[in-house]
Amino acid sequence: MTVDTLLYEGKAKKVYATDDAEVVKVSYKDDATAFNGVKRGQIAGKGAVNNQMSNLLFTYLEANGVNTHLVEQLSERETLVKKVQIVPIEVVVRNIAAGTFSKRLGVMEGVDLPHPIVEFYLKNDELGDPLITDDHALVLGLATSSELAALREQALTVNRLLQAKFAACQLILVDFKLEFGKQSDGAIVLADEISPDTCRLWDSETRKKLDKDRFRQDLGDVEDAYQEVFARLTAIS
Amino acid sequence: MTVDTLLYEGKAKKVYATDDAEVVKVSYKDDATAFNGVKRGQIAGKGAVNNQMSNLLFTYLEANGVNTHLVEQLSERETLVKKVQIVPIEVVVRNIAAGTFSKRLGVMEGVDLPHPIVEFYLKNDELGDPLITDDHALVLGLATSSELAALREQALTVNRLLQAKFAACQLILVDFKLEFGKQSDGAIVLADEISPDTCRLWDSETRKKLDKDRFRQDLGDVEDAYQEVFARLTAIS
Ligand SMILES: Nc1ncnc2c1ncn2[C@@H]1O[C@H](COP(=O)(O)OP(=O)(O)O)[C@@H](O)[C@H]1O
Ligand SMILES: Nc1ncnc2c1ncn2[C@@H]1O[C@H](COP(=O)(O)OP(=O)(O)O)[C@@H](O)[C@H]1O
Ligand SMILES: [Mg+2]
Ligand SMILES: [Mg+2]
Repeated sequence: MTVDTLLYEGKAKKVYATDDAEVVKVSYKDDATAFNGVKRGQIAGKGAVNNQMSNLLFTYLEANGVNTHLVEQLSERETLVKKVQIVPIEVVVRNIAAGTFSKRLGVMEGVDLPHPIVEFYLKNDELGDPLITDDHALVLGLATSSELAALREQALTVNRLLQAKFAACQLILVDFKLEFGKQSDGAIVLADEISPDTCRLWDSETRKKLDKDRFRQDLGDVEDAYQEVFARLTAIS
Repeated sequence: MTVDTLLYEGKAKKVYATDDAEVVKVSYKDDATAFNGVKRGQIAGKGAVNNQMSNLLFTYLEANGVNTHLVEQLSERETLVKKVQIVPIEVVVRNIAAGTFSKRLGVMEGVDLPHPIVEFYLKNDELGDPLITDDHALVLGLATSSELAALREQALTVNRLLQAKFAACQLILVDFKLEFGKQSDGAIVLADEISPDTCRLWDSETRKKLDKDRFRQDLGDVEDAYQEVFARLTAIS
């Protein structure tokens, strides 16, 4: 297998072509960025944790009826996934107020939302990934009305499944970001990653942050937090 | 009538109590602010234009089945309106890309949208009136699902009516902001104002801006633009 043509490099992963046109190899980096690339650093071992944790969770979601891009883990940091056309909408689910939700809307971090909410953000680094409404997605031609409904429904299903999984290892799923992609046959599947880079996870007892907010907010013990989350998940899986 | 107890003063208007508890007097000022109060100035004659133009348009909308807060014009600058509890959501309708829509989403000003869109913003100066989704409005308790649907429908009705009115005097309605309020009996009516402060209006032939963007962007002829719009409307009314 020739797996060395770099197709693109993102902030957290490199994507390589393989000799199967429908499959790409994703290679997870230790690079960390925040605030749209303004803050940069490295989190030792992050690539390995995020790759294996994503695969563990995607395997669990698949077993529960969610279609994902996962094909096969190759190594600690590398995984084969179905090549998809990423839908340029970042889908965020929130259970508890935190991050930009708290800041933009003046709601204190930690306040339970009366029900989970789904937000769409335009995936565009130059524009700073702005929040968009359904109307924006429609007039920008990002998705159809029924695709938006499907994204929302899938996101809420993933939320229910992940909440249960994390609760089983004493973690509260505060919020998370998903990316979806279109396969060559048109089917939309869950893609990208699910990791402490893309989820806010708090210890159920102490509410200690065990995710990328430790990096964003310079809270220390960043590596430990990523390892802790992965260790708890593997212990119950 | 005792009409001198100031209830509150906003950026563009003062609101006074009257001896009818269900009615307030609105007095329009010449003060102009932009970019959430960062830019400040005066536009001579603006108060008189905005008051009379709002009343002209509210009368037209009422005649076409839209319930508004309008009671009676008292003078060039003063009007009696039903006292309402303002719904803390600014409702924006857009027909053509401009302003924050263009800036946030990277769409060139002047591009026709495939269909009119409705946006909701949290009416909160301290937070900078952030864009919100339906889910945000629901979890913040700003409105119920059916109230949001009603706001959206009313806004699109007002858009169709205003587009026709403005087209008849060679003006393109690019976008505008509405505020709605709850009467003491619970009914939601159109409130606040409709003026060159709250609408983007372009000359149909030349596309010359005839609205507050002349103030925001220091384009000159600000007073003339406001007078021109009002003159064109009165000529056909
Ligand atoms: N299955 C897939 N097929 C193609 N591209 C993918 C797939 N899964 C994720 N990607 C994309 O890979 C790119 C690299 O990932 P990442 O480094 O996280 O990027 P970003 O800097 O956008 O966060 C992203 O554009 C992501 O959307
Ligand atoms: N019918 C009404 N009853 C009560 N308040 C109203 C009514 N119509 C408008 N208002 C409110 O009057 C206030 C003053 O108006 P304005 O100066 O435009 O305020 P702002 O600074 O919020 O733009 C605003 O809060 C507006 O929402
Ligand atoms: Mg990413
Ligand atoms: Mg106002």
